[in-house]
Amino acid sequence: MRPVAVIGIGKTAFGAFPDRDLRSLAVEAGTRCLEDANAQASQVEAFYLGNFAGPSFVGQNHLAPYVAGAMGITGVPATRFEAACASSGSAFYHAVMAISAGIHDTALVVGVEKMTSQPTPKVAEILAGAGDSMGEVRAGATFPALFAMIARRHMYQFGTLREHLAAVAVKNHANGAKNPLAHMRKLITLEQAMNGKPIADPLTVFDCSLVSDGAAAVFLAPLDRAKEFTSKSPARVLGIAQVSDHVALDTKDDITTFAAVRTAGEKAYKMAGIGPAEVDLAEVHDCFTIAEIVATEDLGFAPKGRGGFFAADGETSLTGLRPLNTSGGLKSKGHPVGATGVGQICDIVQQLRGEAGERQVAKHAIGLAQNLGGSGATAVVSILGREG
Amino acid sequence: MRPVAVIGIGKTAFGAFPDRDLRSLAVEAGTRCLEDANAQASQVEAFYLGNFAGPSFVGQNHLAPYVAGAMGITGVPATRFEAACASSGSAFYHAVMAISAGIHDTALVVGVEKMTSQPTPKVAEILAGAGDSMGEVRAGATFPALFAMIARRHMYQFGTLREHLAAVAVKNHANGAKNPLAHMRKLITLEQAMNGKPIADPLTVFDCSLVSDGAAAVFLAPLDRAKEFTSKSPARVLGIAQVSDHVALDTKDDITTFAAVRTAGEKAYKMAGIGPAEVDLAEVHDCFTIAEIVATEDLGFAPKGRGGFFAADGETSLTGLRPLNTSGGLKSKGHPVGATGVGQICDIVQQLRGEAGERQVAKHAIGLAQNLGGSGATAVVSILGREG
Repeated sequence: MRPVAVIGIGKTAFGAFPDRDLRSLAVEAGTRCLEDANAQASQVEAFYLGNFAGPSFVGQNHLAPYVAGAMGITGVPATRFEAACASSGSAFYHAVMAISAGIHDTALVVGVEKMTSQPTPKVAEILAGAGDSMGEVRAGATFPALFAMIARRHMYQFGTLREHLAAVAVKNHANGAKNPLAHMRKLITLEQAMNGKPIADPLTVFDCSLVSDGAAAVFLAPLDRAKEFTSKSPARVLGIAQVSDHVALDTKDDITTFAAVRTAGEKAYKMAGIGPAEVDLAEVHDCFTIAEIVATEDLGFAPKGRGGFFAADGETSLTGLRPLNTSGGLKSKGHPVGATGVGQICDIVQQLRGEAGERQVAKHAIGLAQNLGGSGATAVVSILGREG
Repeated sequence: MRPVAVIGIGKTAFGAFPDRDLRSLAVEAGTRCLEDANAQASQVEAFYLGNFAGPSFVGQNHLAPYVAGAMGITGVPATRFEAACASSGSAFYHAVMAISAGIHDTALVVGVEKMTSQPTPKVAEILAGAGDSMGEVRAGATFPALFAMIARRHMYQFGTLREHLAAVAVKNHANGAKNPLAHMRKLITLEQAMNGKPIADPLTVFDCSLVSDGAAAVFLAPLDRAKEFTSKSPARVLGIAQVSDHVALDTKDDITTFAAVRTAGEKAYKMAGIGPAEVDLAEVHDCFTIAEIVATEDLGFAPKGRGGFFAADGETSLTGLRPLNTSGGLKSKGHPVGATGVGQICDIVQQLRGEAGERQVAKHAIGLAQNLGGSGATAVVSILGREG
């Protein structure tokens, strides 16, 4: 297995774009990415698309050749990966493994979702498709309800407070306000976060990520071929893993942790030959504030039960011990579901390169991205390191 | 790259099963497959699921861990592939490449679709999601209409006759009548086929494949490890390719051929080191009778324009020069979209093993499967050979 590098990144802004269709967003991200890598469409040996629910949101399926064709990419494998909110994390995992194993020499990985053209109840119904339709969903659970149960249990078992959840929201909004491509660039106070409109107790509107449109793309090549394309510092994939678990929350012994994330983290750390302490910054999957707290623990950044305290102490802020979601996270940057996994990789690479502007962190040699599908049935953890 | 073998197959019957849900079908096929391979769920290192439109047909997304979890498979990558009617062909391609490259040592690949719970107009709408929603679909084209245009052009350009289309239907119904797992086990006459209810001129109901429920599964391992599992003859993957093209039919220079199928065929033949003349039998993607005729030509079994004549001359029957769709094909066996690609592999392996019963062909050393997505935007061609 040979070393693989991310040598190009491209993103659209995340937001609500009534005048944009899914394909134009995907093509914009893909085109920017190829430009960033100084690569041509004809140099793409395989095309990977992450998308959760294009057919339900915009009536378009068979999305990989649909997007690839519009970029002038034909005659190669073009494949769509669907793994709920980890769809493009899964596409990225498969692309990295294929290049590492020598199946392909280059790959373009695009994640995209167009969500805002549907009314809110329909969006909630489509998102619920990532849960167990014959179990928890039939029983009335939405994703906010499922993560509210996780939050309640975490509070009960570890003394996590509403203030801790709110601290995550305040921090992510502060970061997102510095990100020109973020959906909601708005500072919020702890008081506002504590008094948000209730969604599913104890979660308020400030604990929930955003419904967004957007796309992100990365271009991959073997590390030793990076310089053929661009003089920018390549981001080497040090470790990566995709791991599955049961879909329904009620099948889990302990809902304050995600086994798939822990296993994926362990595998990725082992492959990278490092531990959590060596990670300078991370993008974690904060679909809800409690999810960031759980990820903080499952990835080993804080001891079990201490994730909320860690956030409230400022350790995850831009100047803290371990900055998390410097992009603003799903909470403030936005969460176009199928774009999120690759978007996280773009955000990490930007930090590794030192191109993150106002939100640039001081230590940026190694970054981690954690992408979650549903309530923990799919987890992808990727660790990247700056080369040169 | 090491040799890969299919060492287990499992299928449900294809048909309309109002009392069965998607997951139970997938689990049945997967379980039968592991039994056939003499393998345990705990030996599955990666799970690949092909499914086209579970979210639209039954409201369930995130299907790979959903099915894998029900089989007791967790803690490994479980990934859904969507490529329209080539969804499980694409899943199979990725699994084969991963084992060949040493990424995994075993893989379970399942294809599934549950279509009959929706009314016919809704099924047509969901299937149209595999076309270009902003172009041909908006203009009113359904898939029967698109393939009717292909048929008309083929007739105009090459003298293909209604009788030729009907000959394909008669032959596939004859084969399907001998297949205990086929959806429609009914002999039809040439006269019946010629006088079917019109669907999209020149296609009648007898030119169209069936709307079905069903699942199919294969278990893969490196060829040199096959005997660790089962004493049955392994089916070695001699060649395989997945290739993409534009989605919209109006983007193609010539609609009487599919460039993606030709390229995938060329790549697969090259990898296998053989030509079309060495293929003993094939399962081709007869979503419509004209599609079988075009595939006959694109895969090199008959010269361009002669596919219809080849069928009418009986060359593709069980006792002909090159038996095609000995299973009954999508026309008679049924077409649960996401199950079709892996179902074809199961049917080829059954023939290679000499286990095809009444429809067993005399020469069965090498078989080919061709799986098509939409009107040619995804093509997967696999060539398998009997070992031992």
